[in-house]
Amino acid sequence: MKNPFFKKNNNVSICDIFNCLNIEYYKKNFKINDIKELESANKNDISFFHSIKYLKQIKNTKSNLIITSKKFRKMIPKKKNIIEVPNILLSVAKVTSLFYPTALDENFDKRVELINPKKFKNLNLGNNILIGKNVKIGKNCSIGHNSIIESNVVIGDNCQIGSNVIVKNSLIGHNTNILDGAIVGKKGFGFFPMKDINIRYPHIGLVIIGNNVEIGCNNTIDRGSLSNTVIGDGTFLDNQVHIAHNVKIGKNCIITGQVGFAGSSSIGNRVLIGGQAGISGHLNIGDNVQIGGGSGVIKNIPSNTKVMGYPAKNIRNFLKENKINE
Amino acid sequence: MKNPFFKKNNNVSICDIFNCLNIEYYKKNFKINDIKELESANKNDISFFHSIKYLKQIKNTKSNLIITSKKFRKMIPKKKNIIEVPNILLSVAKVTSLFYPTALDENFDKRVELINPKKFKNLNLGNNILIGKNVKIGKNCSIGHNSIIESNVVIGDNCQIGSNVIVKNSLIGHNTNILDGAIVGKKGFGFFPMKDINIRYPHIGLVIIGNNVEIGCNNTIDRGSLSNTVIGDGTFLDNQVHIAHNVKIGKNCIITGQVGFAGSSSIGNRVLIGGQAGISGHLNIGDNVQIGGGSGVIKNIPSNTKVMGYPAKNIRNFLKENKINE
Amino acid sequence: MKNPFFKKNNNVSICDIFNCLNIEYYKKNFKINDIKELESANKNDISFFHSIKYLKQIKNTKSNLIITSKKFRKMIPKKKNIIEVPNILLSVAKVTSLFYPTALDENFDKRVELINPKKFKNLNLGNNILIGKNVKIGKNCSIGHNSIIESNVVIGDNCQIGSNVIVKNSLIGHNTNILDGAIVGKKGFGFFPMKDINIRYPHIGLVIIGNNVEIGCNNTIDRGSLSNTVIGDGTFLDNQVHIAHNVKIGKNCIITGQVGFAGSSSIGNRVLIGGQAGISGHLNIGDNVQIGGGSGVIKNIPSNTKVMGYPAKNIRNFLKENKINE
Repeated sequence: MKNPFFKKNNNVSICDIFNCLNIEYYKKNFKINDIKELESANKNDISFFHSIKYLKQIKNTKSNLIITSKKFRKMIPKKKNIIEVPNILLSVAKVTSLFYPTALDENFDKRVELINPKKFKNLNLGNNILIGKNVKIGKNCSIGHNSIIESNVVIGDNCQIGSNVIVKNSLIGHNTNILDGAIVGKKGFGFFPMKDINIRYPHIGLVIIGNNVEIGCNNTIDRGSLSNTVIGDGTFLDNQVHIAHNVKIGKNCIITGQVGFAGSSSIGNRVLIGGQAGISGHLNIGDNVQIGGGSGVIKNIPSNTKVMGYPAKNIRNFLKENKINE
Repeated sequence: MKNPFFKKNNNVSICDIFNCLNIEYYKKNFKINDIKELESANKNDISFFHSIKYLKQIKNTKSNLIITSKKFRKMIPKKKNIIEVPNILLSVAKVTSLFYPTALDENFDKRVELINPKKFKNLNLGNNILIGKNVKIGKNCSIGHNSIIESNVVIGDNCQIGSNVIVKNSLIGHNTNILDGAIVGKKGFGFFPMKDINIRYPHIGLVIIGNNVEIGCNNTIDRGSLSNTVIGDGTFLDNQVHIAHNVKIGKNCIITGQVGFAGSSSIGNRVLIGGQAGISGHLNIGDNVQIGGGSGVIKNIPSNTKVMGYPAKNIRNFLKENKINE
Repeated sequence: MKNPFFKKNNNVSICDIFNCLNIEYYKKNFKINDIKELESANKNDISFFHSIKYLKQIKNTKSNLIITSKKFRKMIPKKKNIIEVPNILLSVAKVTSLFYPTALDENFDKRVELINPKKFKNLNLGNNILIGKNVKIGKNCSIGHNSIIESNVVIGDNCQIGSNVIVKNSLIGHNTNILDGAIVGKKGFGFFPMKDINIRYPHIGLVIIGNNVEIGCNNTIDRGSLSNTVIGDGTFLDNQVHIAHNVKIGKNCIITGQVGFAGSSSIGNRVLIGGQAGISGHLNIGDNVQIGGGSGVIKNIPSNTKVMGYPAKNIRNFLKENKINE
């Protein structure tokens, strides 16, 4: 899929990449197609390896050109070409900006205009709605007052967008509701804390929301950095939920009020999460998992497990320990 | 009180109810007035019994027609007529939709218009305010910019509504402030997770806010399902508080930032709750209770008690245990 | 600095103060300049001492006139003049209202108008922006749709204000971004719970935000009561963060999603705080502190420390204890 929100520079060569990373380069020049995560990269894409959590992916990636550091070099299959750098993610950010030079501009969409009901027929429209360029909205949708749909957003059929909603960099399925005050698709909280300054990371990922989804009031759902933030079919989010960049939530999950997800975690299908629970970054939560309200999840959870506590543990242990202590 | 927000179908008969629940019915037909919770139901109303938490209510209810399941049947006084179903709450949802056929429509209020200062005299009005039909606003009130007051809402005297506020399905007392960005009266997060689809529950309850109340910035206060969500006189809520459907909060309570309430809990008078604490659903919290910041309350708390911890326990035990562990 | 947001009454005398506190006064009358905290008070200002947490400050304050109670009287240097009252903070509130009679009016700014692009040249402006009187905005700034900048706010160069943002009583540096839906500068959640009524405290403090700061979506940042709420240069806040009145956050801190700060705590430089952590009121957190996600911090933390847990403790202890328990 072509990225509908960020224009890609199609003329990036290996020499450009070495230049931007301040590394000398001896061999012949050739073009690189794109920068992608290990899993989705093709053979002409550059990728990166920065954590043993991705050992499986580095073994299976199609990418032949991997940014990594001295520490991780030895875990990479021998046939891959390696670019060794001191700070992997900072280098990835620089290379991403080479491919997507506009991705760091997080300004509001200047191209929006008050919606023209002649152009968007058969919609149920509130007052003062702003719509960007090339927005696609399906049949039988409604959009509430003061909402903003930025350029290139796609919304399926039978969707209800509430009032005071902001949607950008997002693709939304059918029969999905986004309730009042939700903010969907802003860049993630990703940057590099350097001495005296934080260097922002380009976020070229999208928010992809499935069918029959409900996004609660005042939710904040950040788009992905290199990959996408995904909310699966049939998943319901209550009010004041926060979803950071790159999080993937499966199908038919129920996420209650004030739950928060740190970046890049994957949640299975039919997962129930109680109010105010928090899920740390880069975790894998299986299918049919139940997480008690207020829990703090800091490690992977296998499928068909009930956990509770901070840190979250098997719910039987949690209950037993807390009866004993009382 | 007649429900000002949802039109009731006054022609529901016992046959209609049996039809909608797919149960055969042999006896003679008669009209049912309404569907209500055990406590507020009258003799011509249908009600339901689905948890031993409501044992006291089932003994005292005036309703003669109770929806329940096999498991709970034996706890119901013999003189009551019983409709036995496999899934009580799903059946209640179906019957509620019979009485209130429009209650599942959670769309924005299409009837709002830019406020007419000639119609609402002596108010202090910001820009771009949208007001629905039959809204009543008392003396000396102010409403900030971009706020939306949907149809049939009642606001008392001397109230201050901030900017970017959305109020629907709510009755608000005197001298009450609702601060910027608060969303009051949307439906609760109530539905039935069925295979591959969540079936939404009709929410016909209101939000009833007393006198001298303060609702903080970006609060989300959901209206009740069958009963109401209630905030008592003199209670103050800080920013980013989330109150789920059917919660009843007493008088002169102080609820600090980011506190969350799951559905259907009752909070007494003069209760103090510290920041980020969470209160599980269907609990009873007494009067003069103090709940420490960050606590997770998962059982009832008697009056005049101080608790802290996750799960919340007597504060003396919490402090003792944590000194020992340090 | 003269308070740009609240007009000071320059004619408050010691007699006025005694009158408003209902205390008889025998000596000769003289003018008092202002009411300030111990640290910032000058010799003609009145101040107050209400907690042993401020023992150091009471020894070094320039103020010669201290409001206190019987309990704290003996800790105050002998040469100071003392006004003994039964309820210190209530008396401080009354005296503050003497000096700043309009400070209790928390209404929306009636003076705002739709922004005039001729007056604010070279700005990148969205639709429906409201600007108060005497607002100063630097070069190369952008302001998104439906945002409200109230009177006397100052915004530096190269700032990006998102959509649906509300800013009041705030001074903002250069290169600072305030993301969609943030509410900056409303009064703090400060009041006195008296029998049947909460008495509101006047909040005359500002929000002062430094350079290169990022304020996340749907953040709520309250202004100070007597002192200011401060966010230091280079500090980044993620979405749904809540900062109560008088909190001071240092430079280059990273505060992730849904973190909450109770009032009057001080946070050092380069502090990292994980998601959903909560910081209690009146604490001192040192430099280079790392606070794990979900932690509840209820006591001071020295510099260069990593903590986690509820209550937060040294992270090594937290991890050890939780391995043992598992």
